[in-house]
Amino acid sequence: MELKLLFPLAVSPAAERLRYILGEDDEPPNPTLFTEMDTLQHDGDEMEWKESARWIKFEEKVEEGGERWSKPHVSTLSLHSLFELRTCLQTGTVLLDLDGYSLPQIIDDVIEKQIEDGLLKPELREKLSYVLLRKHRHQTKKPIHRSLADIGKSVSSNTGQCQGSGGELKNKFIKKIPKDAEASNVLVGEVEFLEKPFVAFVRLLQATMLGGVTEVPVPTRFLFILLGPAGKAKSYNEIGRAIATLMVDDLFSDVAYKARDREDLIAGIDEFLDEVIVLPPGEWDPNIRIEPPKKVPSAEKRWVRTTGLDPFLGGLHSPAPRRCLRRFCGGLYLDIKRKLPWFPSDFYEGFHIQSISAILFIYLGCITNAITFGGLLGDATDNYQGVMESFLGTAMAGSMFCLFAGQPLIILSSTGPILIFEKLLFDFSKGNGIDYMEFRLWIGLHSALQCLILVATDASFIIKYITRFTEEGFSTLISFIFIYDAIKKMIGAFKYYPINSDFKPDYVTMYKCECVAPDPAGLSSAKSTLFLPKFVSSNAINLTALDWTQLSKKECLKYGGSLVGKSCKFVPDLALMSFILFFGTYSMTLTLKKFKFSRYFPTKLRKLISDFSIFMSILMFVGLDVLFGLNTPKLQVPTDFKPTRVDRGWFVFPFGKNPWWVYLASALPALLVTILIFMDQQITAVIVNRKEHKLRKAAGYHLDLFWVGILMAVCSFMGLPWYVAATVISIAHIDSLKMETETSAPGEQPQFLGVREQRVTGIIVFVLTGISVFLAPILKYIPMPVLYGVFLYMGVASLNGIQFWDRCKLFLMPAKHQPDYVFLRHVPLRRIHLFTLVQIICLAVLWILKSTVAAIIFPVMILALILVRRLLDFVFSQHDLAWIDNIIPEKEKKKEDDKKKKKKGNKGDSSSDEEMESDYDDTDTEKAPRDMGSETTL
Amino acid sequence: MELKLLFPLAVSPAAERLRYILGEDDEPPNPTLFTEMDTLQHDGDEMEWKESARWIKFEEKVEEGGERWSKPHVSTLSLHSLFELRTCLQTGTVLLDLDGYSLPQIIDDVIEKQIEDGLLKPELREKLSYVLLRKHRHQTKKPIHRSLADIGKSVSSNTGQCQGSGGELKNKFIKKIPKDAEASNVLVGEVEFLEKPFVAFVRLLQATMLGGVTEVPVPTRFLFILLGPAGKAKSYNEIGRAIATLMVDDLFSDVAYKARDREDLIAGIDEFLDEVIVLPPGEWDPNIRIEPPKKVPSAEKRWVRTTGLDPFLGGLHSPAPRRCLRRFCGGLYLDIKRKLPWFPSDFYEGFHIQSISAILFIYLGCITNAITFGGLLGDATDNYQGVMESFLGTAMAGSMFCLFAGQPLIILSSTGPILIFEKLLFDFSKGNGIDYMEFRLWIGLHSALQCLILVATDASFIIKYITRFTEEGFSTLISFIFIYDAIKKMIGAFKYYPINSDFKPDYVTMYKCECVAPDPAGLSSAKSTLFLPKFVSSNAINLTALDWTQLSKKECLKYGGSLVGKSCKFVPDLALMSFILFFGTYSMTLTLKKFKFSRYFPTKLRKLISDFSIFMSILMFVGLDVLFGLNTPKLQVPTDFKPTRVDRGWFVFPFGKNPWWVYLASALPALLVTILIFMDQQITAVIVNRKEHKLRKAAGYHLDLFWVGILMAVCSFMGLPWYVAATVISIAHIDSLKMETETSAPGEQPQFLGVREQRVTGIIVFVLTGISVFLAPILKYIPMPVLYGVFLYMGVASLNGIQFWDRCKLFLMPAKHQPDYVFLRHVPLRRIHLFTLVQIICLAVLWILKSTVAAIIFPVMILALILVRRLLDFVFSQHDLAWIDNIIPEKEKKKEDDKKKKKKGNKGDSSSDEEMESDYDDTDTEKAPRDMGSETTL
Repeated sequence: MELKLLFPLAVSPAAERLRYILGEDDEPPNPTLFTEMDTLQHDGDEMEWKESARWIKFEEKVEEGGERWSKPHVSTLSLHSLFELRTCLQTGTVLLDLDGYSLPQIIDDVIEKQIEDGLLKPELREKLSYVLLRKHRHQTKKPIHRSLADIGKSVSSNTGQCQGSGGELKNKFIKKIPKDAEASNVLVGEVEFLEKPFVAFVRLLQATMLGGVTEVPVPTRFLFILLGPAGKAKSYNEIGRAIATLMVDDLFSDVAYKARDREDLIAGIDEFLDEVIVLPPGEWDPNIRIEPPKKVPSAEKRWVRTTGLDPFLGGLHSPAPRRCLRRFCGGLYLDIKRKLPWFPSDFYEGFHIQSISAILFIYLGCITNAITFGGLLGDATDNYQGVMESFLGTAMAGSMFCLFAGQPLIILSSTGPILIFEKLLFDFSKGNGIDYMEFRLWIGLHSALQCLILVATDASFIIKYITRFTEEGFSTLISFIFIYDAIKKMIGAFKYYPINSDFKPDYVTMYKCECVAPDPAGLSSAKSTLFLPKFVSSNAINLTALDWTQLSKKECLKYGGSLVGKSCKFVPDLALMSFILFFGTYSMTLTLKKFKFSRYFPTKLRKLISDFSIFMSILMFVGLDVLFGLNTPKLQVPTDFKPTRVDRGWFVFPFGKNPWWVYLASALPALLVTILIFMDQQITAVIVNRKEHKLRKAAGYHLDLFWVGILMAVCSFMGLPWYVAATVISIAHIDSLKMETETSAPGEQPQFLGVREQRVTGIIVFVLTGISVFLAPILKYIPMPVLYGVFLYMGVASLNGIQFWDRCKLFLMPAKHQPDYVFLRHVPLRRIHLFTLVQIICLAVLWILKSTVAAIIFPVMILALILVRRLLDFVFSQHDLAWIDNIIPEKEKKKEDDKKKKKKGNKGDSSSDEEMESDYDDTDTEKAPRDMGSETTL
Repeated sequence: MELKLLFPLAVSPAAERLRYILGEDDEPPNPTLFTEMDTLQHDGDEMEWKESARWIKFEEKVEEGGERWSKPHVSTLSLHSLFELRTCLQTGTVLLDLDGYSLPQIIDDVIEKQIEDGLLKPELREKLSYVLLRKHRHQTKKPIHRSLADIGKSVSSNTGQCQGSGGELKNKFIKKIPKDAEASNVLVGEVEFLEKPFVAFVRLLQATMLGGVTEVPVPTRFLFILLGPAGKAKSYNEIGRAIATLMVDDLFSDVAYKARDREDLIAGIDEFLDEVIVLPPGEWDPNIRIEPPKKVPSAEKRWVRTTGLDPFLGGLHSPAPRRCLRRFCGGLYLDIKRKLPWFPSDFYEGFHIQSISAILFIYLGCITNAITFGGLLGDATDNYQGVMESFLGTAMAGSMFCLFAGQPLIILSSTGPILIFEKLLFDFSKGNGIDYMEFRLWIGLHSALQCLILVATDASFIIKYITRFTEEGFSTLISFIFIYDAIKKMIGAFKYYPINSDFKPDYVTMYKCECVAPDPAGLSSAKSTLFLPKFVSSNAINLTALDWTQLSKKECLKYGGSLVGKSCKFVPDLALMSFILFFGTYSMTLTLKKFKFSRYFPTKLRKLISDFSIFMSILMFVGLDVLFGLNTPKLQVPTDFKPTRVDRGWFVFPFGKNPWWVYLASALPALLVTILIFMDQQITAVIVNRKEHKLRKAAGYHLDLFWVGILMAVCSFMGLPWYVAATVISIAHIDSLKMETETSAPGEQPQFLGVREQRVTGIIVFVLTGISVFLAPILKYIPMPVLYGVFLYMGVASLNGIQFWDRCKLFLMPAKHQPDYVFLRHVPLRRIHLFTLVQIICLAVLWILKSTVAAIIFPVMILALILVRRLLDFVFSQHDLAWIDNIIPEKEKKKEDDKKKKKKGNKGDSSSDEEMESDYDDTDTEKAPRDMGSETTL
C-alpha cells in the first residue's frame, strides 16, 4: 500500500518506476547479499582497508577497542546519512553491469569513467588507484583457546589478520552465508588529496572473486566506493553504513540487481525512505543496539505494497482434513492415500540425536504409566489384569499404532475413565455371577465394531465443532489431573512412610519395635487359627519354638505376633528423601529445560542439555538416591512373562461361560466405552494436530480410530487393557521432537520449523516397554518419586502455550503488565475474562465429575463442553470469538466454501482450517483474521 | 555536535535559528507537556472527539477493540508523516500567544484567521465550528473490580466515558503528571465538507482549562487541529501522532514555547529530523511496540549539541573525601563537620516501611552471627568469651557505632581473622602462664591507641590505592567465605544426624538401641571410677539399682553404660529436614526477591513481597518446621544476663596478674590486630561508599575508625569480643534500603535514587540484639538451617553487581552471547580474561591462606593485593585499566587537580573520585572515560 500524500513532498513517489522494473519477469530470486564495509586506515604513510562492519541480514560491527565482533543488531541509521547517500548516487559514478574480472581493472574502469565525466582531475588517477588497491585486513573471530593462549602477551595489537585469499579458510563464519550468496563491498575513507568526494557504485555483470577484498570466499557483485576530503570520516562512515544496510534490504537489493540506470537506484532509496521507521531522539538512545526482532516483515508483503504484484503462492500444506465425504470409508481411504507417500520418510527421518532424548523421556513416561495403571487395574479386577498385562498391552498396542496409524506422534496409554469402567464392570460381573473376562471380551468386540462403524461413516467430522475452547479445556483438565496425581502420590509417601515427629535424638534408647509372641493361651483358640489357617496348618511351624525377636515386621504379623514399641509405626528418612527426589527431579528438569535460553556455553551444547534435561535430571537423582543408599520405593517391573493370575491364559475364549443374551446385551456398555474412546482419541488428535505444531504430514483421524478399534478387539481377546491416545504424553512427545532452524544469519532468531514427524521414536518406545521385562535389573535403580517428578514436569509443561492458561494468568496481572497478546488489542479485557471464567467453571464441573463415580459419563460431558461453546455464540460477538477462539466467522467460511468449489480433484482435500491462521502467536506482530484485515492491519 | 553535510540537503540546517531562540535567557524550565490526541468519530450524523492516544514521555494508545490503554511505548513514526507535518505547519495557520479563555472563543479566532488569510471559505465557518465543538470522550482506566462487575453484560459498548470536567476526578492517571504540567491537545479528523485540509497550530498566552477537552484537569497551552477531506483518516492520524510526539520531545517543546514565528517551529522540526533514528523496514516490524529504554539521552546533551550552550551544572554531591589533609586530626574534624548537619535527618529519614524489613533481615543476620561466633569464641577461649559476651558486645558496639560513626550503614560484627587471633592468643597465654584476660585487655588498649593515631594522622588516605581490583577481590572473598560456611554448616548436619541408609522398613524390629549396664565387676575397679568420679561419688547413686533401660543416651554414657543396637549411631529425618529447610529458605528468598520483576500483582504489592522476601521465607519455613514438629536444631540465645564463665565479671582489671613487661610487649601483637581491623574496616567502608550506591551523605572514614578504636578499648575492659565492619552484612543492609523513584511517566523505568541513609535501622537492630535475651521464647522456634539458608542467600546476593564476578562468568559465555558491557566494547576479551585470571589467582592464594593458621596475616595479604594491582600497571595499558578498573588516567587526574586548585574553601572538599563516573553500568549506553571522550563518544 502506498501512502497517498496530502501535500507535495521532497521525496518523489518512486513506486511507479519500481513497479516497472521489479514486475518485469518471473526470474529466479536474486542471491542473498553479504555486505562488508571496509574503512581506510592511516598509519603514518601506510594505508590499509580495515573491515569495520558486515551484514547478512543484521549489522555486526567491529568493536575497535574490544577487537571483536559486536552482537548482530538492527542497523540504526541517521536520516542525514540516507539523504547524503541519495545525493552521492545522484552525483557520483554509477556503472551497471561492468564486465570486471579483477579489482585493478574495475578500479581502472571506474576512475576512467570519472575522468571522462569531468568529475576527477586526471592527475589524481595514480594516487586514487594506489589508495584503492591497498591491502584489506579482516576481523576474524578467534577461537577462545587461541585467545587464552594470547593472553600472556602484553602488547595488544594482535588482531586476527588475514591477507590474500588464503587465510579465510578457517573462518567459521562462512557457514552462516548461503551457498549461492554474492558479496557487496563498501569502501569508505578520507584522503588528503581529494577536494570533493569520489563516489562510485558498481554492479558487475558477473559476480567475481576479487581476492582478499572480502572476508569470506564469496564472489563480489556490487562495489560502493566513497573517498572524500579529510575531516569527515564519521560522515563517510555513516553513508557507508547506509548503503550497506540498503544492500541487505530485500527490496532494495532486488532493485540493485535489476536497476537500468541511476534513477532506478534513487527510486529504490526513495521507496526505502518511504518505509523507514523513525524513532524520536528523545525517546531512544541511538547507542542502544536494538536486538533483532523475532520476526521481520516478510519481503513478500512489502513487495506487494510496493509493486502491487502478488508474489507466487503455493507450497502450503493442507494440514488436517476433517471433511465429511459421505462416502463409505471415504475418510479412511483418503487418510491412507495421504499418509502412504510419507511412510518411508516416517522411518528415515527418525534417525536423529533428538530422537534418543525423546525415546528416553517418553519411555520412562510410558512404563511409569504402565506400572501405575497396571497396579490400579490389578486392584480393581482382582489381578485379572495386572502389571504384566499392562506392560504387554502397552507394548503391543502402542507399537502397532505407531507403525500403522495416521498420526504416529500420538502415544497410546490406559486412561482414568477406562480404569473406572473396568472397576465397575468387574464389580457388576462378580455381583451378578457373570464371567468378567468373557463379558469384557464381548464389550470390547462390540465397541471395536462401533468404532469401525464410526470410521466407515466418517463420523470424525464431529470434531470440527471442537474449537480452541473445548480442546484447551480438555487438555488443561488432563494436565491438572497429571499434576494432581503426581502430587497425590508424593503426599502418599508421607502416609506410607510416617515420620516420627516426636523423636528426640537423646532418647534413642526409648525407641524400639519388638515382636511379641501372641498369648500362648489364645493361640490355639478358634479366633487365631481362623486368621492364620494356612501357615499354622500347612507349614506346621511350632510357633512356641519361634525366636520372635528375630522376625521381621511382616513375618511377625503373619505368625500372629504383635508389634510393641514406639518406633513401630514410623519409617525414618524415606518420606523426606522421596520428597527431595521428587521435587529435585522436577525443578532440575525445569531449570535445564530453560538452559537453552541462557548465555552460557555454545548454542549446540545448550540445546543438547535442554533436550536431555529429563534424562540428566533422572540420572542425577538416581545417582543421589544410590549415594544415600536409602530404601526408597523403586520402579519394579515384572520379570516373568506370564499372566498375573495363574488361572488365566493369554487368550480369552468368547463362548461358554456366560448366557447367550450377555453377548448381545454387552452392546450397551460398549456404547459408553465407544463414546469414551472416541472423545479421548479425537480430542487428543486435534491437540496433536494443532496448527501451531506445523505438521507437514497431515493428520489421519479416521485411520487413527480404525486402529484404535482393531487394537481394542485384539486386546479384548488377549485379556489386556484397552488403549487410547494419552493427551499429556503425546504433547510431551511432540515437545521433545520440535525442530528449529539451525544456521541462520547472525542475529536472526531460530524459527520453529515443525515437529520431527516419524514413527521410529514411538515404535522404539513401545518395543522398549515390551522388553522392559529384561531391563528390570537396570530399572530397579529408579526411585518412584523421581518418576513422579517427571510426571509433574509433564503436566506443568503441557500447560505451556495453552491460550486458556495464559488467559487465566491475566486475572492476576494488572492491565499495564499484561503481555502484548494480539487478542488483548482487539477484545475488551472483561470479555476475555468472562470467556475464561466460563471455561474455568466448565473445568471445575468436569473435575468434580471426574472425582466421583460419574467419571464414567465423563466423555459425554466433553460433548456438553461443545454445547456450552455453541451457546457462547449468543453471548459473544463473532468478532470477539474470532480473536479468542480462533474461529472463522461465518461469512468468511462461505467465501472459503465458494473458493473450494472452484477447485477440484486432489486439491479439494484442503479444508478451510488451512486458512485459519494461528493468530495466537507469541510474537508481537499483529495478525487479524481475514475479514477484519482491512480494518485493523496497517 | 552538528553534523556537517557533504552536499546540500532538502532539510535546511536550522540550528542557527534555534541557537538564537533557545539561548535567549535564563528563564525557568518550561512545564512538562501532557499531550492528548483526539480523533473525530462519525456515528451516522453524530460526531464526537474520541481520545485515541496520549503522551507524557512515551506513547499510550487506546486499543480500539480492547477498549484499554496499550502499554507505554516508544512512538514509531513514519518519515512521511513528519514531512507532511512540516508542510502542514508551512501552509496552515500558526497563532502564537493567542489570548484564549475558552474553546469556542479560540476556535472562533482560528477560523477567523483562516478566512482572513483566504485559506477557508467563509461559508464553512459554521460547519467547522460545529465540528470542532463536539463533545470529547476519554478513555479511562477502569478498576479491575468494576470490569469484573461488568462482565455479566453481554453488550460490549461500555467504554469508560466522561464528558465535561466532572468525571476526571476519579482518574488515577493524574498522579503520573507533574503538578505544574500543561497540556497540548491534538485534534485530527476527516469531514465531508472540506476540500483541502484545515490546519492550525495555536499557542495560548496562558495555559487555560478548556473544559472536557483534556482527559485530566490540566490547563491547555497548545492546540493542534487538522481536519481534512474524507478518505485519508489514516494519514491524518499519523500526522497527529507526529506532532504529539514532537510536543513531548524535550527540545521541540522548548522551541514550541519560545517560537517567535512559523519558521522557528519548522526549524524545530528540522532539528528533530536531524536527530531522528531510522530503522530499516526490512529489519524491524513497525507493528512491534518498542519498550521504553532504561535510559534516554538527556535533554542537556542534546541541548548542548543543538545550541552549543552549556547547561547549568551543580547540585552534585561530593561523596567520599579521602584527602590527606596533613593536619592533626584534620580528617576526623572534617568528617564530623560534614556529618553533623545530617545528624537529625539520620533519624527522621529512618521511619519508613522498608526499614522494618531491613531491621528484621539484618537482625536475624546479626544474632545468627553473634551465636555462631559466640560459640566458636567460647570453644577457643574456654568460655572466657561465650555466646552471652558475644550478644552483649554486638549490641553495645553495634549500637554505639550506628549512633555516632561516620557511616551508619556499616554493620559491626566479629570476623574470622579476629577469631583466629583470639584462639592463638588464648593458647599462648595458657602455655606461658600469662593471664589471658589481662593480656588481651592490654593488646586491645594498645590497638585502640594505634587506631586513634591512624585517625589523627589521617592514615586512611591509604585507601585511595584500593581500586575496584582490590575492593572487589576482597568482597568476593568474603562472599565466598559466607557461602562456604553456610554450606559447610549444612553438611555438618548430615554428620551430626547420621542417616541410617541400611534401614529396611520391614525389619524395623531389628533396630533398637539399648543401654546396657556396665560390667558389675568392672564397676568398682579403678578404671571406671576414674572416669566417673563426680557422679559416682558426689551423687552417690547406686548404679546397680538403676533401671538402665530407662536412661537416655546421654545419661547412659554418663553413668558408664554402653549403647548397644543398630540404631544407636543414627538419627532419623533430622538431616534431610534440615536440608529441606536450608535449601527451601534460600531458594524461596531468591524467588521472592525476583518477584519484583514479575508481571503479576500491582507494583506496590510486588515491591512489598520483594522487600520482605527474607522475612516471608523464614516465616514459611519456621511454619513448616513447626508443622512437622521434628526436633531440628533451633536458635538458642542465652536467657540469663551473666558472663558465660562464673569466675569472671563484667570488668577486667588492668593490673596485677601479669608481669609489667607484658603491658608493654602487648603493643606488638596489637599492631597485627590494628592492621587487621584497619583493613577490614576501611575496605568494607570503601565498598559501602561505592559510587553505585549513590550515597548523599558522604563517608566518614576517619570518624568510623575513631569509633572502632574507642569501642575496642571499651570491649577490652569489659572482656567482650572486638568488633569490626562486616562486609556481607553491610552490603545486605544497603541492599535492603535501596530507594527507587515511585511515580514516573508511564513507561519510564524507575530510577535508582540511592540508599535510605539513616541511623535508625542499625540502632534498632542492635538494641534488638541486646534484648534478644528476652526474645528467647520466640527465637527458639527458628531452626538453625533456616538461618544458614539466609546466610547462603546473603553470600550469593552480595556477589551481584560485582564486575569481577560478571567477568568470571564471561569465561563460560561464547563471545556472541556476552552481555553488552561497555568494557567489552573497548578492551579486547583476552586482556579482560587475563585481568580476571590474575584476580582469581590472587583470591585462590588468599583463600588458601585464610584456611590455614596464616589467616592471621590475612590483612597483610590484602595490602599485597594492592601491590599486585600496582604491578598490573606495567602489564595493562592505562586505557584498558580505565575501562576494567575504573581508574582515572594520570593526565586526567592532573586536569582534575588543576581544576580543584581553582576552587577554594568548602568546595575544595570534593575530591577527584567525584569525577570517576560509574562506567560500569548495566545500561547499554556508552560512556567513555573523559580523556577518551573525543575518540569514542558520538
